[in-house]
Amino acid sequence: MSETVLYVCTTCRREGDDPDGPRAGARLLEALRDRAGDAPDLRVEPVECLSVCKRPCTVAVASADRWTYVYGDMDPAASAETILAGLAAYAATPDGIVPWRERPAEFRKGVIARIPPFPEPRPRTAGALEAAE
Amino acid sequence: MSETVLYVCTTCRREGDDPDGPRAGARLLEALRDRAGDAPDLRVEPVECLSVCKRPCTVAVASADRWTYVYGDMDPAASAETILAGLAAYAATPDGIVPWRERPAEFRKGVIARIPPFPEPRPRTAGALEAAE
Repeated sequence: MSETVLYVCTTCRREGDDPDGPRAGARLLEALRDRAGDAPDLRVEPVECLSVCKRPCTVAVASADRWTYVYGDMDPAASAETILAGLAAYAATPDGIVPWRERPAEFRKGVIARIPPFPEPRPRTAGALEAAE
Repeated sequence: MSETVLYVCTTCRREGDDPDGPRAGARLLEALRDRAGDAPDLRVEPVECLSVCKRPCTVAVASADRWTYVYGDMDPAASAETILAGLAAYAATPDGIVPWRERPAEFRKGVIARIPPFPEPRPRTAGALEAAE
């Protein structure tokens, strides 16, 4: 199974953030890392700004051969469980496309964009296709 | 130089689209293909929905080892030249990050999200490397 990478924007602020404490995005990162533990095939990575500054907190999920999804409006504490459940559903698909009704409501409402799997650099030959199947 | 892929959402509609004609996104794809010609290292690909339905027309630009960017609010005709100019600036960078002032105004205003370059797979341990050999 291809590794899934969860990018968490640590630049995201939320109204009411303690100016002396960690930002909402950094708190979400910590909540996700606490809950994800040593999940195999999942990497949780901090990232500086996903350019979705109007809808904090923001995360993106990517995986080789799967669509990439960007989600906003995540709660720094309450969303961690939902995000991990959504990722498990994502990782169980071959292409990253989870049927609409099976997506967490927060993902349905919070979707910012999706991007196709990055294509192979060169068309594969018949031989390569056979080998992959 | 790594190939750049420009994804154009052909599902995007715009107010005033002729219901019997091609949608705004499909017209943008055609305008881009006309102007891009046989540009080396650039692939223009149609895609069905980038999930940015509220800000048509929408495109995404991706390239191995570079950040991916998603842009909305593109005009189906007038934006083609700007998009190609923006892509040339993108392709000239090692990581896809064009200095803010050098980005076309339409890219600065229309940015929807950006996603880091997909990371290298987790480094294998010395033991795993040996086992593979």
